[in-house]
Amino acid sequence: MKLISKQAIGIFDSGVGGLTVASSIKYILPNENIIYFGDTAHLPYGDKSSESIKYYSKKIADFLLGNNCKIILIACNTASASAYKELKEYVDNKAVVINVIDPVVQHVIQNVKSLKVGVIGTKGTINSGTYEKKIKELNSKMVIKSLPTPLFVPMIEEGFIYDDISNAIIRSYLSKDNLKNIDTLILGCTHYPVIKNQIRKFYDFRVNIIDSSRIVANFVKKILHENNLVNTKTNPDYSFYVSDYTETFEKISEMFFEHKIHLKKMDLWK
Amino acid sequence: MKLISKQAIGIFDSGVGGLTVASSIKYILPNENIIYFGDTAHLPYGDKSSESIKYYSKKIADFLLGNNCKIILIACNTASASAYKELKEYVDNKAVVINVIDPVVQHVIQNVKSLKVGVIGTKGTINSGTYEKKIKELNSKMVIKSLPTPLFVPMIEEGFIYDDISNAIIRSYLSKDNLKNIDTLILGCTHYPVIKNQIRKFYDFRVNIIDSSRIVANFVKKILHENNLVNTKTNPDYSFYVSDYTETFEKISEMFFEHKIHLKKMDLWK
Repeated sequence: MKLISKQAIGIFDSGVGGLTVASSIKYILPNENIIYFGDTAHLPYGDKSSESIKYYSKKIADFLLGNNCKIILIACNTASASAYKELKEYVDNKAVVINVIDPVVQHVIQNVKSLKVGVIGTKGTINSGTYEKKIKELNSKMVIKSLPTPLFVPMIEEGFIYDDISNAIIRSYLSKDNLKNIDTLILGCTHYPVIKNQIRKFYDFRVNIIDSSRIVANFVKKILHENNLVNTKTNPDYSFYVSDYTETFEKISEMFFEHKIHLKKMDLWK
Repeated sequence: MKLISKQAIGIFDSGVGGLTVASSIKYILPNENIIYFGDTAHLPYGDKSSESIKYYSKKIADFLLGNNCKIILIACNTASASAYKELKEYVDNKAVVINVIDPVVQHVIQNVKSLKVGVIGTKGTINSGTYEKKIKELNSKMVIKSLPTPLFVPMIEEGFIYDDISNAIIRSYLSKDNLKNIDTLILGCTHYPVIKNQIRKFYDFRVNIIDSSRIVANFVKKILHENNLVNTKTNPDYSFYVSDYTETFEKISEMFFEHKIHLKKMDLWK
């Protein structure tokens, strides 16, 4: 199927956390139409089985394809870890499927000199071992230390950020033996950029923090250029859908997107 | 429809937290067959819209009715607040539908002499104002102070209990102006009995903590007696279903049920 530049960039996540990635894309590719889908009915994906996540992802891909997307970006590490391969086969040549893990792995291999790299993320992401396997395939000498930090997502969503409680939770997770002596830390969840500076402070700015939202946005830009798919028309359209609507989702969307947005409800499972 | 004693008690919740209620029922009604359904695919309900929760509840009721239940107990405050009325009409005379809020309201009206009562729960439960409305209808003099405490569910599920972090989170919520000077606190979420003693300690044991799991189990016993539906046959069957299975759910089930159990996957939405 021939893709064309005026088609939209489709982005999905389990909820509104993936808006950190959408925000970076809007910033770096200001002429692109964006359609965002947050699967808030099944949020959080971090606790769900990979079988369920594959099923949800295909339904969402159908919706994004139906809305004429040239790119389907899985803006969720958990779904990238469990569903990327199957989703890529499923979508085939109808759109370019991009996950948030491979661009970060490439970045780490090309730019990180350290051999002691930590990864944090949801249980789904970390237990899949995806970051570790992919990095080790390209550089077997790199030592990857990974740790699930499942309370970060609800903590951020409930607004416990830059306060004593979030400092204590961050300390409780990041002090664990498993992450001792790392000098680089991959934020393996699209929610975590919100607490990036707090994590940097915990390490007294001595650990290099890898923020996937920016790296992924750059990767999308590269893919568009390579495939002559960059939109040059100005005044792009932005649409934001969620599978379940509540005021809280709308309210916290701004924290991730850094801009006020309006969420529309679209239940794909009824 | 004629209900009979050997039919099971059906219990459902958004996840495995409602097992605190199932555990109390097993203790107080040791001969009853129990079928439990945890809607882990949509967990947590606390953030979902009431429209979605009504839809999920009906699907689950169909499953429990198909498994020959005499009682359908909504062991979730959020679903009790948003879906009870509609579910009762939907189930009609095919089973007795019981929610976890009305028995607690009755208990408070009959036993609590205080006029300054606090209620904590998820955003869904608290924003619905259900406890406040129901108590005020029966005793207009009672002052009800309610506060959403949404981080408690993930905090408990991630095992942050009886430690500094959970103490700080409990302090952060319960010190809010809104709950000042209460002398009774209703735990309006079936997860919260797990941190009951920690909350009692926060108040230096001076506040009366109302644990709905026990009150609801007693209410179920009363209903069974009134309707000649008590099972006297020994060696009851227990079955536990979840709409999405992960090892974590199985592991934390024990924390709520206080007994090892095996969860079976049953996806009602495929």
